[in-house]
Amino acid sequence: MEVDKKDEREAESSEQVVNPWEVSAKDGGKIDYDKLIDKFGCQRLDESLIDRVQRLTSRQPHVFLRRSVFFAHRDFNEILDAYERGDKFYLYTGRGPSSEALHLGHLIPFMFTKYLQEAFKVPLVIQLTDDEKSIWKNLSVEESQRLARENAKDIIACGFDVTKTFIFSDFDYVGGAFYKNMVKVGKCVTLNKAMGIFGFSGEDPIAKLSFPPVQAVPSFPSSFPHLFPGKDNLRCLIPCAIDQDPYFRMTRDVAPRLGYSKPALIESTFFPALQGENGKMSASDPNSAIYVTDSAKDIKNKINRYAFSGGQDSIEKHRELGANLEVDIPVKYLSFFLEDDSELEHIKKEYGEGRMLTGEVKKRLTEVLTEIVERHRRARAAVTDEMVDAFMAVRPLPSMFE
Amino acid sequence: MEVDKKDEREAESSEQVVNPWEVSAKDGGKIDYDKLIDKFGCQRLDESLIDRVQRLTSRQPHVFLRRSVFFAHRDFNEILDAYERGDKFYLYTGRGPSSEALHLGHLIPFMFTKYLQEAFKVPLVIQLTDDEKSIWKNLSVEESQRLARENAKDIIACGFDVTKTFIFSDFDYVGGAFYKNMVKVGKCVTLNKAMGIFGFSGEDPIAKLSFPPVQAVPSFPSSFPHLFPGKDNLRCLIPCAIDQDPYFRMTRDVAPRLGYSKPALIESTFFPALQGENGKMSASDPNSAIYVTDSAKDIKNKINRYAFSGGQDSIEKHRELGANLEVDIPVKYLSFFLEDDSELEHIKKEYGEGRMLTGEVKKRLTEVLTEIVERHRRARAAVTDEMVDAFMAVRPLPSMFE
Repeated sequence: MEVDKKDEREAESSEQVVNPWEVSAKDGGKIDYDKLIDKFGCQRLDESLIDRVQRLTSRQPHVFLRRSVFFAHRDFNEILDAYERGDKFYLYTGRGPSSEALHLGHLIPFMFTKYLQEAFKVPLVIQLTDDEKSIWKNLSVEESQRLARENAKDIIACGFDVTKTFIFSDFDYVGGAFYKNMVKVGKCVTLNKAMGIFGFSGEDPIAKLSFPPVQAVPSFPSSFPHLFPGKDNLRCLIPCAIDQDPYFRMTRDVAPRLGYSKPALIESTFFPALQGENGKMSASDPNSAIYVTDSAKDIKNKINRYAFSGGQDSIEKHRELGANLEVDIPVKYLSFFLEDDSELEHIKKEYGEGRMLTGEVKKRLTEVLTEIVERHRRARAAVTDEMVDAFMAVRPLPSMFE
Repeated sequence: MEVDKKDEREAESSEQVVNPWEVSAKDGGKIDYDKLIDKFGCQRLDESLIDRVQRLTSRQPHVFLRRSVFFAHRDFNEILDAYERGDKFYLYTGRGPSSEALHLGHLIPFMFTKYLQEAFKVPLVIQLTDDEKSIWKNLSVEESQRLARENAKDIIACGFDVTKTFIFSDFDYVGGAFYKNMVKVGKCVTLNKAMGIFGFSGEDPIAKLSFPPVQAVPSFPSSFPHLFPGKDNLRCLIPCAIDQDPYFRMTRDVAPRLGYSKPALIESTFFPALQGENGKMSASDPNSAIYVTDSAKDIKNKINRYAFSGGQDSIEKHRELGANLEVDIPVKYLSFFLEDDSELEHIKKEYGEGRMLTGEVKKRLTEVLTEIVERHRRARAAVTDEMVDAFMAVRPLPSMFE
């Protein structure tokens, strides 16, 4: 019997689609994140939770929390409950290494995870899914592994603490306790269920069917016997973009059947393309994103030429009507990366009321992003192969909770 | 879309079914091995190949070759061609460890593999598919691994050479180069294709879909970097029962796409149940088989009470008509295990022409099997945990071709 879901997928194309391989808004508009929360069944990350984070960590919440870049969660409140009682947790995030250079959108989960690690003083595992990318992008094993190491350098450059962080490539690390958990998870998910969650078709290779358990099992501390021996009840918190939610819905569904805790999640919106806010950035169009390898000149040119402006066509009209901040990409980008809340408010007010022009906002954005990219480039240049080996060594982390 | 093959499977039930999980003859009769060769597309192992084995190994071919227990093959002639030119190969066989005690049918591939290892002086890898049994029999990981070690003792008791033999459990060994090959294989097999080959249904867990690559990749020398470094072109010969053919049809199909050699196969018939020749023995009925743990008394009782006889109802009728050797289990069992060709011929003639009675044949069979089982029991009792560890250690085998 042939299995194919193409028809169903085509029927859905006028709806918004958000899964690990496709993010597209309805009719080319914006992603409706409220609808996504309802559809996925996660919770909105509200003010009271953010206040609680501030109180528990004794520091200002990260800009990505204050500005609702991370906007949804699953059981994050339980993680905080446990933390308040003195129970620690661990962080798990990851990256599919399909490209040499990362863009700013790729950095968001890592910048946020670094903040969580520092604020809560907890260990972190980072999965590089080189197997996934070999399967989906049809890269050779060798090329996927090369990209994984290259991406590891960018991740390390975000400033993670080597005494609390284990980075692993699936091709290197799958096996042992990790493989045992993969089999346990794979026994709990039927083919029909996996096809429903992930939209696989009969023409997909079975390697795709084998992958969801690989992304699931870092949620369970027993997958890391060198890190968490005897700590099978340690809770896991996963910071990620919301397109990864299907993997963890599946994981949370099977966890109780294996006697494991469900992982908690804290989920972000997507970082929009320079051309406008209707999905994620596209790797196939280098002008749709600012890359961490872009020069100051590249950044300036891309922002000036491609960043979609909500300003009016003429200065006169702009002075009269002000910018449409809802669609303006420079303001959106500043809301991700300009840390000073009062300056951001000032820009939004002045620009929105027409006293500030698009050119001025773009100039400020160029400064902010150039500084971030330059800082990242310097940090990455300082990452040696020995440091990559150190982060990726299978080793205990004796002071990971200190 | 729901995927289910139940209807198709039911429609086939009046046909013979031979796959790794089910062996049943048409209408409760005998397995039609000629039909199986046609359906699977393998070749009959003919006299000229057996003569060639005799010539190349300078020893009498194994009784399982002389009596067509191993009756079919794929590219075994190419293995012999290469061997004749001075090129070696390696052997790969395995066992799914689902039960504590093995029966005589389980020993057949191992007895034959031991002969091949000795005769050709080649290395051998033995896969214990504890992951498979955990998935299909819903055993815990721990129980599957325990059974794997117990079964390893029975396998070692067959007399393998520790300097040429690597035994591994999937739960222990999957990872690294082996996992990379699993992903490579999984990328080449579509879900539709896997469902066609293995008859999976939409209600099956995805862990089942993940397994065929696990059984496939020991066919490739690069899955064993500690054994065959730089020997990516070493050919592989797989002795197995013909119900395993679907795994290796899939493997042979994908091998060229990965730049690997197709494994060759040498395939056996099934060892019949005591009650008659219509499939494999059943683990759920202990009286359907002789176990290697059976006492001499058990063996005598089982043969006398359960071994289906082709003899006639009365002595008078028997003297007149003789036994029907086609359905007689004692003669069938002797043809597997009585090494003396002339004695076997004598028994078949005397019994077939009514001069020998069932009781006499059963008595001789009891002697033969008791000796084999006693020898096995003594050998197994001498297998220590240290020996199991030695066979299962991931290590080079420097003299494996000598």
